[in-house]
Amino acid sequence: MIPPLATAEEPIGVAVIGAGYWGPNLVRNFQGSTSFRLRWLCDLDLHRARSVLGAYSTVEATDSLDAVLSDDRVQAVALATPAGTHLPVTLAALRAGKHVLVEKPLAATHEEGRQLVDEADRRGLTLMCDHTYCYTPAVLRIRELLHSGELGELHYLDSVRINLGLVQRDIDVIWDLAPHDLSILDFVLPEGVTPVAVAAQGADGIGAGRSCIAYLTLRLNTGAIAHVHVNWLSPVKIRTTIIGGSKRTLVWDDLNPSQRLAIFDRGVDVASPHELDVEERRDMLVSYRSGDMVAPALTEREALRTMVEEFGRAIRTGTPALTDGRSGLRVLSILEAASRSLAKGGEMIKLNGGPNG
Amino acid sequence: MIPPLATAEEPIGVAVIGAGYWGPNLVRNFQGSTSFRLRWLCDLDLHRARSVLGAYSTVEATDSLDAVLSDDRVQAVALATPAGTHLPVTLAALRAGKHVLVEKPLAATHEEGRQLVDEADRRGLTLMCDHTYCYTPAVLRIRELLHSGELGELHYLDSVRINLGLVQRDIDVIWDLAPHDLSILDFVLPEGVTPVAVAAQGADGIGAGRSCIAYLTLRLNTGAIAHVHVNWLSPVKIRTTIIGGSKRTLVWDDLNPSQRLAIFDRGVDVASPHELDVEERRDMLVSYRSGDMVAPALTEREALRTMVEEFGRAIRTGTPALTDGRSGLRVLSILEAASRSLAKGGEMIKLNGGPNG
Amino acid sequence: MIPPLATAEEPIGVAVIGAGYWGPNLVRNFQGSTSFRLRWLCDLDLHRARSVLGAYSTVEATDSLDAVLSDDRVQAVALATPAGTHLPVTLAALRAGKHVLVEKPLAATHEEGRQLVDEADRRGLTLMCDHTYCYTPAVLRIRELLHSGELGELHYLDSVRINLGLVQRDIDVIWDLAPHDLSILDFVLPEGVTPVAVAAQGADGIGAGRSCIAYLTLRLNTGAIAHVHVNWLSPVKIRTTIIGGSKRTLVWDDLNPSQRLAIFDRGVDVASPHELDVEERRDMLVSYRSGDMVAPALTEREALRTMVEEFGRAIRTGTPALTDGRSGLRVLSILEAASRSLAKGGEMIKLNGGPNG
Amino acid sequence: MIPPLATAEEPIGVAVIGAGYWGPNLVRNFQGSTSFRLRWLCDLDLHRARSVLGAYSTVEATDSLDAVLSDDRVQAVALATPAGTHLPVTLAALRAGKHVLVEKPLAATHEEGRQLVDEADRRGLTLMCDHTYCYTPAVLRIRELLHSGELGELHYLDSVRINLGLVQRDIDVIWDLAPHDLSILDFVLPEGVTPVAVAAQGADGIGAGRSCIAYLTLRLNTGAIAHVHVNWLSPVKIRTTIIGGSKRTLVWDDLNPSQRLAIFDRGVDVASPHELDVEERRDMLVSYRSGDMVAPALTEREALRTMVEEFGRAIRTGTPALTDGRSGLRVLSILEAASRSLAKGGEMIKLNGGPNG
Repeated sequence: MIPPLATAEEPIGVAVIGAGYWGPNLVRNFQGSTSFRLRWLCDLDLHRARSVLGAYSTVEATDSLDAVLSDDRVQAVALATPAGTHLPVTLAALRAGKHVLVEKPLAATHEEGRQLVDEADRRGLTLMCDHTYCYTPAVLRIRELLHSGELGELHYLDSVRINLGLVQRDIDVIWDLAPHDLSILDFVLPEGVTPVAVAAQGADGIGAGRSCIAYLTLRLNTGAIAHVHVNWLSPVKIRTTIIGGSKRTLVWDDLNPSQRLAIFDRGVDVASPHELDVEERRDMLVSYRSGDMVAPALTEREALRTMVEEFGRAIRTGTPALTDGRSGLRVLSILEAASRSLAKGGEMIKLNGGPNG
Repeated sequence: MIPPLATAEEPIGVAVIGAGYWGPNLVRNFQGSTSFRLRWLCDLDLHRARSVLGAYSTVEATDSLDAVLSDDRVQAVALATPAGTHLPVTLAALRAGKHVLVEKPLAATHEEGRQLVDEADRRGLTLMCDHTYCYTPAVLRIRELLHSGELGELHYLDSVRINLGLVQRDIDVIWDLAPHDLSILDFVLPEGVTPVAVAAQGADGIGAGRSCIAYLTLRLNTGAIAHVHVNWLSPVKIRTTIIGGSKRTLVWDDLNPSQRLAIFDRGVDVASPHELDVEERRDMLVSYRSGDMVAPALTEREALRTMVEEFGRAIRTGTPALTDGRSGLRVLSILEAASRSLAKGGEMIKLNGGPNG
Repeated sequence: MIPPLATAEEPIGVAVIGAGYWGPNLVRNFQGSTSFRLRWLCDLDLHRARSVLGAYSTVEATDSLDAVLSDDRVQAVALATPAGTHLPVTLAALRAGKHVLVEKPLAATHEEGRQLVDEADRRGLTLMCDHTYCYTPAVLRIRELLHSGELGELHYLDSVRINLGLVQRDIDVIWDLAPHDLSILDFVLPEGVTPVAVAAQGADGIGAGRSCIAYLTLRLNTGAIAHVHVNWLSPVKIRTTIIGGSKRTLVWDDLNPSQRLAIFDRGVDVASPHELDVEERRDMLVSYRSGDMVAPALTEREALRTMVEEFGRAIRTGTPALTDGRSGLRVLSILEAASRSLAKGGEMIKLNGGPNG
Repeated sequence: MIPPLATAEEPIGVAVIGAGYWGPNLVRNFQGSTSFRLRWLCDLDLHRARSVLGAYSTVEATDSLDAVLSDDRVQAVALATPAGTHLPVTLAALRAGKHVLVEKPLAATHEEGRQLVDEADRRGLTLMCDHTYCYTPAVLRIRELLHSGELGELHYLDSVRINLGLVQRDIDVIWDLAPHDLSILDFVLPEGVTPVAVAAQGADGIGAGRSCIAYLTLRLNTGAIAHVHVNWLSPVKIRTTIIGGSKRTLVWDDLNPSQRLAIFDRGVDVASPHELDVEERRDMLVSYRSGDMVAPALTEREALRTMVEEFGRAIRTGTPALTDGRSGLRVLSILEAASRSLAKGGEMIKLNGGPNG
């Protein structure tokens, strides 16, 4: 868990850019954190910014990015604007010496994301991606379980994220929803386990002009498989991820607050060939475990609160955030390959990313 | 619904071949039907056949297929043996003038299945595939809803069939489980809507030497997509199919007996371009429906009972069964293409089947 | 639905008293309503009041009730303090000419509640009970369904409200949780249908010195029965109400956001005796309906928001709120009778309330 | 677990009396047990008996009880007839030297049940009650958990058993359904913990002339409470029992095959008074545990199969069955007291039973 900073230091002055869907959540969480002092809410639509702040707030609304960036009390900005604006706004903020938190995806393209990472590096500033799900108690626990080896080696990950969702104007369902799944995957994979290729299938269905349903298949360097189903057209909401390990299998049902995680001591074991003599190898040695299920108690804590604290920690310590710019790059790398696969009818596309995406 | 035959005719003499996993279910259902008179249970392992019949049965057990096929009281046989045996046993039965019901898949290969269909045609005998799921009250209703247009045009079908299942020695998870989904798809699609290509991704995971997890993507001639997830390694059992139509969307949860079908008047509509003037075309016209859900009352009736009655009906009337040999061929055609796709890393493979698979 | 007031009138000045568990929700909702202007948050613990408002609010915090009541800009106060304080604070507010919204229960005793209702009547001021659940979309719909006769005559209502809850220091589980169920019952019952007696059973279990588990049985003047299970000790959270009517039966599962209401055309019908001749009367004529289930689409709207608008409407129009002081009295009347029954080992206690409780 | 008898002994000759709702299940399970040899199925309606056996059985059908009781090959009979017939048929069977298994309830009255127990005792014969639920893997595990102290002391048990059920002609819903809950309660309670009083509330609702909905409250000698909700009129089927212990709480959801039992390390603890000094006693010391949940793996085994084996074990060893006649008496004692309470408007009725009911 990432606790609030116990510090005598001054709170970090912060501004939120973007008063649309996500901005209000950032406003609420920065206001609730003692690590930050929220100075501005900025939106091109000043009326919207004011309306988000409401009639009772002392936070200033503005439609001028310059006003924000030239304010010395502001050390950090948080971006909740469309991906197409991330490049110019983030560059401007970094050049003004501000630390930046960017809503997912990091940028509209991998190339643009790379510029942002380089710029932040050059200036020694924090660049963090708001991969909110990574900061849920459930995903933090999944990360622990995979890193500690408690689940054993990863065999497969299957993620379903479907709902009756807003058909976006500018991006397809992969770019809209899969960043959640891909950033979670990036976050929970143990050191050395990494996706190496991706294939994507999609369908429009309603004549929207872009995929409204899509399936991604990722190959990992270990032979494991990851599969993601994203869908804007489902009348039922499902957010379930199954993570099969060699020791245990985990089911994360994000819509079941009373039992978000279930860890099953249940599975199939095959004796490895070198344990068997010639006679035995003819028959595969398969055995089935059918043990208990444990649903661990999780603390209830808003993910965005934890994310905000991590942003503060990264700024103060000068160390990379858990979901730093590079994690955003790795996600972009997969998204771009998925789009290429989609265009080629589902061909498997190699990811040529090293550890930095 | 397929009612028992109201007839003064003699019951049809029938023999069940195979006393393994599925045979006992056939034995029970033929015994429960007034359309049939069960004469034999035949298995190479005579002890197993006897044990299935139990200590109180007047049905004869045998390990001799010849004894069964040369018995004039037997007009029909039902096969519940491994797919590899379907060709010789079915051919022998047809040549002995018996009608044949074959467990899925129809045969080990499309070529073998074709031989069976041709032989049955030549002899004017009934050849039926035991696609049991097609005879569940839920699937019969889904068929009605799609054929009558109540769901509108099919946009997508997503089927998940996962469980901790027996790792088969001779076939992968696609050949083991996907015949259920593919036969259901074949059964419910309206006239003229048909799959034209398939891609498959699979993973072994546990070192079993064959895919234990797999994903199939089917393209339909209408542009619709169908996706199937089959998995032997899941600690939780899920059997859920979502069928998105242009008017309504249906969710079939086969593990929820109190609400197997749910029909949602919920979805996304996009005005078609020719309805819009130039101005409007710039903006896509998307509207959302968020209406009621109806869970229709379904009669509870064992699918196998209905299937057995359909076998009787087909024999007596000389008309094809709802799941006749040709439907079995169409399923085989997709399975073979899926295997080819799997071998080629997920390449989309065209199906060159006409209406007869 | 109760819409925000479309009015050119000035917003109503309001103060919230009590910054504990519930107060912050009132603060948030009054701030979000254009019908009100929040002036004060008052709590004996000034620090707590300030902390609830946070560092960014222009609302004033105070620990002085006098300051609030003597403020002419304040026309209404909302009380979220323990029941024991309702009498003096509400009386003081009414005497200062303020309209009052009181958290449930209306007062610590029926006698005290009666004083409040009389005082408000005398002064022509609005006295409203914050029976929040009554303003959920689900309960508003249930009310419609019962008032319109769509469910037919009420046969039974069964409500379960259990969870691992805070063991209260001063009140037992009946006074803590049952006001929700009783106020909902009061709200949805059609004209002329009313509880006439109540019996209560309780158990302590953990040595808390008061009932932590309790069961209430209410008899209605129509012969119908209502039963309430409240429980602080359940490890699972259940909030399910079944309402059996002569035409349809409704299930309200408040923890299932995707299907809160389910209306079943399913039930048992018995032909009434006068429809039968002598012969028939010997055999009861029972028939079973097993029709569809409909889950109506409900708008998602925070109940407290609707409640706040109803408070505004009642103040502006001078007409009683849907959950006025008298509804609070009726609930108190049942709670007191339940306590008496509990003390007498579950004896059925008559309710001697007229329409005003 | 109760295994089949590993014995070289002859199977016990058995006859089933009654070919109605339950009889066929007994027929099937006696046929499946190597401990028994089923000789007869007897029903006043010979046609029904024959129809249950079907066209393929070697078991004899009869409408003559005498034929069964005078058959020396029959050592035991199993009764699945209405409760009103239990006295004469069971007495006749015992007097003919047969061991008897009786469907619940043991008899129509406690007095009649007492005669049966005495007669069996006198003759040294096995008299067993078919309390089938007690032999489910779930209830056997619950018994272990309570007997071993793993749940701690029992605080409360809450059982809900509701469905759209057949309105019985001769008995109300308490006598129809509550025997299940009461026999389970009797089965799982540890030595020395016993119900001492019961109160019942019921309602007819549909004009059936008897209670179709009922609530039982039982007081135990330890201060614990047990509550049972039985209902024929519910459109949804619920079979959930919560068992609150001082250490852990268990939820048994019999309709969730993938997670029938859930054991929660969650609850409320109150420091006992003698641990506290005077100062502390003013404040109650309450603490909350919020630990993990464990869903133990249960073997899947038909309860009736286990029950049949226990009948065989009791006959062979001459020791009482786990659900012997005395357990049936204890259940009858509560049912009769519940009926008296119902007639008196819910008055708490003392149970004057010793350990033998």
